[in-house]
Amino acid sequence: MDHGGDIYRNKVNIDFSVNLNPKGAPVEVIKGAAASLEKADAYPDIRQDEIRWAIADYAELSPDSVLAGSGASELIMALVRAVAPKTALLYEPCFSGYEHALKAQGVGIKRHLLKEQNSFAITDEDTGALTDDIDMVFICDPGNPSGAAIDNEVLTRLLDRALTKGIFVCLDESFLALSDKGEKTEEGSQAELVKRYSNLAILRSMTKVFALPGIRMGYVLSDGGNIERIRAQLPEWNLSVVAKGAMEAGIEVLRKRAFIAGAMAEIKTERQFLSENLSRLSMEVFSSDTCFILFKGPEGLWEKLLTRGILIRDCSNFVGLGPGYYRIAVRGHEDNRALIRAMEEVVNGV
Amino acid sequence: MDHGGDIYRNKVNIDFSVNLNPKGAPVEVIKGAAASLEKADAYPDIRQDEIRWAIADYAELSPDSVLAGSGASELIMALVRAVAPKTALLYEPCFSGYEHALKAQGVGIKRHLLKEQNSFAITDEDTGALTDDIDMVFICDPGNPSGAAIDNEVLTRLLDRALTKGIFVCLDESFLALSDKGEKTEEGSQAELVKRYSNLAILRSMTKVFALPGIRMGYVLSDGGNIERIRAQLPEWNLSVVAKGAMEAGIEVLRKRAFIAGAMAEIKTERQFLSENLSRLSMEVFSSDTCFILFKGPEGLWEKLLTRGILIRDCSNFVGLGPGYYRIAVRGHEDNRALIRAMEEVVNGV
Repeated sequence: MDHGGDIYRNKVNIDFSVNLNPKGAPVEVIKGAAASLEKADAYPDIRQDEIRWAIADYAELSPDSVLAGSGASELIMALVRAVAPKTALLYEPCFSGYEHALKAQGVGIKRHLLKEQNSFAITDEDTGALTDDIDMVFICDPGNPSGAAIDNEVLTRLLDRALTKGIFVCLDESFLALSDKGEKTEEGSQAELVKRYSNLAILRSMTKVFALPGIRMGYVLSDGGNIERIRAQLPEWNLSVVAKGAMEAGIEVLRKRAFIAGAMAEIKTERQFLSENLSRLSMEVFSSDTCFILFKGPEGLWEKLLTRGILIRDCSNFVGLGPGYYRIAVRGHEDNRALIRAMEEVVNGV
Repeated sequence: MDHGGDIYRNKVNIDFSVNLNPKGAPVEVIKGAAASLEKADAYPDIRQDEIRWAIADYAELSPDSVLAGSGASELIMALVRAVAPKTALLYEPCFSGYEHALKAQGVGIKRHLLKEQNSFAITDEDTGALTDDIDMVFICDPGNPSGAAIDNEVLTRLLDRALTKGIFVCLDESFLALSDKGEKTEEGSQAELVKRYSNLAILRSMTKVFALPGIRMGYVLSDGGNIERIRAQLPEWNLSVVAKGAMEAGIEVLRKRAFIAGAMAEIKTERQFLSENLSRLSMEVFSSDTCFILFKGPEGLWEKLLTRGILIRDCSNFVGLGPGYYRIAVRGHEDNRALIRAMEEVVNGV
């Protein structure tokens, strides 16, 4: 299986295999999507004026630096086509969607394995992998499946090195809103990096933070010239009015901060609960800064949990991982307790 | 302006610039879309099993021959990437979306001008344009902006010639359901052509027939091997649960035929009303088989109608057309009367 979330061919009561906000979808965003159906009798705005303005205002950038799409996966493919690299670097283990996009375009792939003792985080030891033969690199902050954030100073050194070497950086911040670092701090908007680096595109999925993966939504932030090149690689009306309505309502929710603050409080508490209990059950837990946890446990755990109606992410197919690595979402307390109970049964051979 | 439908930067009371079913959206399809929002907390099925089965059953093909997408425009781009032609042929005038997709991929474009005296229909005179230097051709049946259908025997000769010469054919049937020919006749399903031609992909938008362009939906029918290549060029979850829900309900509506029969009755009556009145006002009307009409009228008509809140499609930017060519949708009778009244005012210099 390439991805989590395959509830269509498994009998699943609780799905820990997809990394979504444990708070679930804000009612405002669902209402925004539902209300937009009234406007479905017209073509979407081909220029995306309203939604680009809203995102730009939130991200503290110019609207020319914004493009919205039907999920980050659409934008990853368009970005690869716009950059048209010969060789791209992947820091492994990472989201398989990068490879899907690179292979579609016939791009050569170089892989740099992140160290297990660093919890698979990108550190200064890993910047040297940006060599002259690379045209593009994917950086995921926090990483998926590791959950490990990149130190902002390491990130700056990476971006500087990439700029010097003419390497285009795709910085995937799909989980940043649900991470300890956050999209906005008192020091400002993380997105402002695109003002300093013309070789940078920041990708953000909105399906995780709003727990609405069925509505495909996301956006990319980059220099205006890059945005035009990405747009040329997208279908002309790539954003449905439904995705637009949901995103517009979503940006309003993000702006108020209370939703994110509540989600992060729950994520931190439950992440600790899960980590402590996984450790107690002799699993090896990797440090996570976001809404999911990578751990090492007994082989066969995936199958045994699935017979109990619980789906987790078997990470054996990630490059740099293997059998016995698993990823779980941080869900609400009741679900998390159910998972730990089921794991206890498995570990104790019940 | 590249497309019709720009209601976002024009003050429009009645939009004749987009070619939609005058019956409007069936309530079942809107309900299907709305109900699907309840499933938006899960990822869409990456394999599209249910919707592919439903479309396959309707089109009388194997599910392996079906792929659903977020509008025909997404599928056109993926198809061009899958075929990866060096040189493609366009029968002009035609939908500019083909050129958008070809340019994105850096494909060379050859153009064959269709004859005005044939109402810009593709006829046997035009099959010779399929020469050895062409790898791919776009055929639109009925044509857009012409509205002219292709005779089925001419189409067969075109497909035979393309097969002999190794030319991949994209047959765009986005308006076929709303045309005199129809997607299904007593002789069978038009889609069965894909069983006979491995070099053929049939594209169908569903946004026109259900008058819901804000929800991006469409599908492609082709040989299973082609479908796999097209899928590799699409984002992994390219179909939102909303588009899927709307399409599923839509297929049910098509299956019952009453909706299409009612729409076609209205289209034929109103097309005749519009054509007769345009002719009476000294416009040159081209014969149409579908839900829109191409005509030649006085220059400046577009601007003068817009001041009256009526948006039509200025076709001056289509290759093979020029100033004075316009396209209008066939709408409901009240709107059509309003258009003719406004045109009378313009013609009479009121």
